[in-house]
Amino acid sequence: MSSAALKIGIAGLGNVGASVVTLLQKHAEVLAARSGTRLQVTAVSARDKSKNRGVDMTGIRWHDKAVDLAADPDVDLVVELVGGSEGAAFDLIKKSLELGKPVVTANKALLALRCGEVLSLLSKSKSTISFEAAVAGGIPVIKGLREGLAANRVQAVYGILNGTCNFILSEMRATGRAFADVLKEAQDLGYAEADPAFDIDGHDASHKLSILAGLAFGVVPSVESISVQGIRHVTDLDISFAEELGYRIKLLGIARQTEKGIEQSVEPCLVPEDSAIAAINGALNAVYVDSDFAGKTLLTGAGAGGNATASAVVSDIIDVARGRTLPLMGVDPQKVGQLKAAPMGERLGSYYLRLMVLDQPGVIADVSAILRDCHVSLESVLQRGHALGQRVPVILTSHETPDKGMREAVRKISTLKSVVEPPHLMRIEEFK
Amino acid sequence: MSSAALKIGIAGLGNVGASVVTLLQKHAEVLAARSGTRLQVTAVSARDKSKNRGVDMTGIRWHDKAVDLAADPDVDLVVELVGGSEGAAFDLIKKSLELGKPVVTANKALLALRCGEVLSLLSKSKSTISFEAAVAGGIPVIKGLREGLAANRVQAVYGILNGTCNFILSEMRATGRAFADVLKEAQDLGYAEADPAFDIDGHDASHKLSILAGLAFGVVPSVESISVQGIRHVTDLDISFAEELGYRIKLLGIARQTEKGIEQSVEPCLVPEDSAIAAINGALNAVYVDSDFAGKTLLTGAGAGGNATASAVVSDIIDVARGRTLPLMGVDPQKVGQLKAAPMGERLGSYYLRLMVLDQPGVIADVSAILRDCHVSLESVLQRGHALGQRVPVILTSHETPDKGMREAVRKISTLKSVVEPPHLMRIEEFK
Repeated sequence: MSSAALKIGIAGLGNVGASVVTLLQKHAEVLAARSGTRLQVTAVSARDKSKNRGVDMTGIRWHDKAVDLAADPDVDLVVELVGGSEGAAFDLIKKSLELGKPVVTANKALLALRCGEVLSLLSKSKSTISFEAAVAGGIPVIKGLREGLAANRVQAVYGILNGTCNFILSEMRATGRAFADVLKEAQDLGYAEADPAFDIDGHDASHKLSILAGLAFGVVPSVESISVQGIRHVTDLDISFAEELGYRIKLLGIARQTEKGIEQSVEPCLVPEDSAIAAINGALNAVYVDSDFAGKTLLTGAGAGGNATASAVVSDIIDVARGRTLPLMGVDPQKVGQLKAAPMGERLGSYYLRLMVLDQPGVIADVSAILRDCHVSLESVLQRGHALGQRVPVILTSHETPDKGMREAVRKISTLKSVVEPPHLMRIEEFK
Repeated sequence: MSSAALKIGIAGLGNVGASVVTLLQKHAEVLAARSGTRLQVTAVSARDKSKNRGVDMTGIRWHDKAVDLAADPDVDLVVELVGGSEGAAFDLIKKSLELGKPVVTANKALLALRCGEVLSLLSKSKSTISFEAAVAGGIPVIKGLREGLAANRVQAVYGILNGTCNFILSEMRATGRAFADVLKEAQDLGYAEADPAFDIDGHDASHKLSILAGLAFGVVPSVESISVQGIRHVTDLDISFAEELGYRIKLLGIARQTEKGIEQSVEPCLVPEDSAIAAINGALNAVYVDSDFAGKTLLTGAGAGGNATASAVVSDIIDVARGRTLPLMGVDPQKVGQLKAAPMGERLGSYYLRLMVLDQPGVIADVSAILRDCHVSLESVLQRGHALGQRVPVILTSHETPDKGMREAVRKISTLKSVVEPPHLMRIEEFK
């Protein structure tokens, strides 16, 4: 930047936006030293001008419409914190790129769902979009993957991508409480939304996973090819059985390069209790990158919250100030490929299967026969309690087997008369 | 870079140098896309020209003297992998900077011990030094700290900085074997040098810690103000008692900003068994950054080895190719401050103390009285075994207390007649 200050326009003054303004003001001196220039908020836009956000707005120009920030001659860089893949956010980004102004955004939905369009806009612009804040809040995963590990071919990227789910699963384990009860607490604490579906059904994690996979494999993010399952069906019983078997349950996003294409899934998995990922509790996020020269690299920390996300936004602003930007997906727009999805039915994995059965002779023999017929090899069978004619849980774990065989077996098992609840199936991920 | 290729000269063809050449050749196509230019090794220098390194050297010019790489007109960027703070490495870096050629280095000793001189050279040069490979091998900790978390004031940086020590401590715990025995195995596996002192006495970790602290606090690295203790005195007994108390033992480097200055230490510590850092086993490294907006961020992975270190070297090369370099310590050389060391005696901490005593009435009373007189508050006392007149271990843990009081107490305890071995003192780090 040639000017004495980098003039920043911020669209969206929610939790994150207010934290960005506060951070830029509080650390003005050290940020100027690290940026080589002063970072100055000159304009903002948000829904409600009269709202008190606890932020000093003296000398900052107000725009009623976010898109007007782009054309403001007193704005060199646009920070888009409006969110959503449609409407104001997209319009603002489009306009900024057209005018050659760099954009910093936290908008994961837009990048996950409309990356192709964004790449097309970028191919016609001299400007750039930075998006460290779009995935895993304050953890520099975009930088770690796209720059820090840029020397590598990535084999897999996976991790805990939703703090709400991780908080709920951690609390369920720590306290033995039921899902609904802990969800309520998470809502009271502000960790979960009033409508929690987007988080607990795995969609938030799938957006983030698609972006990480896009970077890892040099392709346009493809949310629609992710197999997504949330945590609603995880019970306290599953958590305690997992623990008995030496595992913890985590909602994992996993993207893996295979010979048949890229496998992508978001689902609750069992992970070994002595693994580093098992020790990531509460509202934290964690991202593993498995690459050919660097091996397995893990980044973990605060994946959400105003302050942590503001840290990511401002790190991007510093990069822009230093002229240290990059093509969106690490390579020129025309070199970004299309994702070839692997057939998920052929994915290999070992499994945890919990059945609720009527305790009567022959049940386990019936179940075992079905598994055998579907070519699933059993690793262990565990029956807790013994009360003839009563409902008792049976837990089975399998050796590695193709997904479709296991699912076929589960379908058949669920039709057995003695199986009195839908079976609960979860992958066991050892990450070897 | 204006040329069609970035021409690279590499000094040092050991494990890392050979891996860098291999990586650049193997991933040539994807690296060109990520760099925006072809990355081409045009010249090398090493000790023995005739040695077969399993690398294709066709078309690569040989220099007998490393320093001559700098002046080679066919070299745009110099990779310094000679190592050591004196001699050829320093000469090469100096010459390259004088000639305005960017340097990529893995040389932690030079940056830890002579950073002031390097900054002075940089202040007179238009060129830059990149050093991702100097700390924690393939884990992008320099990038994570200096760029990813650049928006923050850092309160502390700490972690597992030496893979050899972590391998030894992990193996001792996993197998119950003694230190000397596991050290021998580590040497046989190539994880430890024939002369292991530099690793196991904590010096390697102290070099890395000084660099991380320099970046975190914007100061010149200061190895001499680090309190350093290695792992030679950690016994299998300590490891099993730590486990009984719910802890693991890790060699930790810790740098913390306090009101009285910066505390820096390298020493074996007890960490809670359910913490993420406790789950980092084997030859891995792990770095925590505790910062005001992002909170606690952990980066972990392969901290050494040719391939992992080559990943870091090449990530720096890509950054140079993209024009994405930075001042050495994140701010202009003249803005890098001097480290003000905190008086370590005033550092607060809770402690693990293992005594070997003659089992006779009154021993614990004597020990307790000394601790009380030194204002150390006991948290627990554990005596294993009971055999009047025999040597038995006694383990004490303290509440938080100033370092000097604890050390004074230990000095006095060691003079008791019934205390028959030098006491073993270790900090307990909860990282709250």
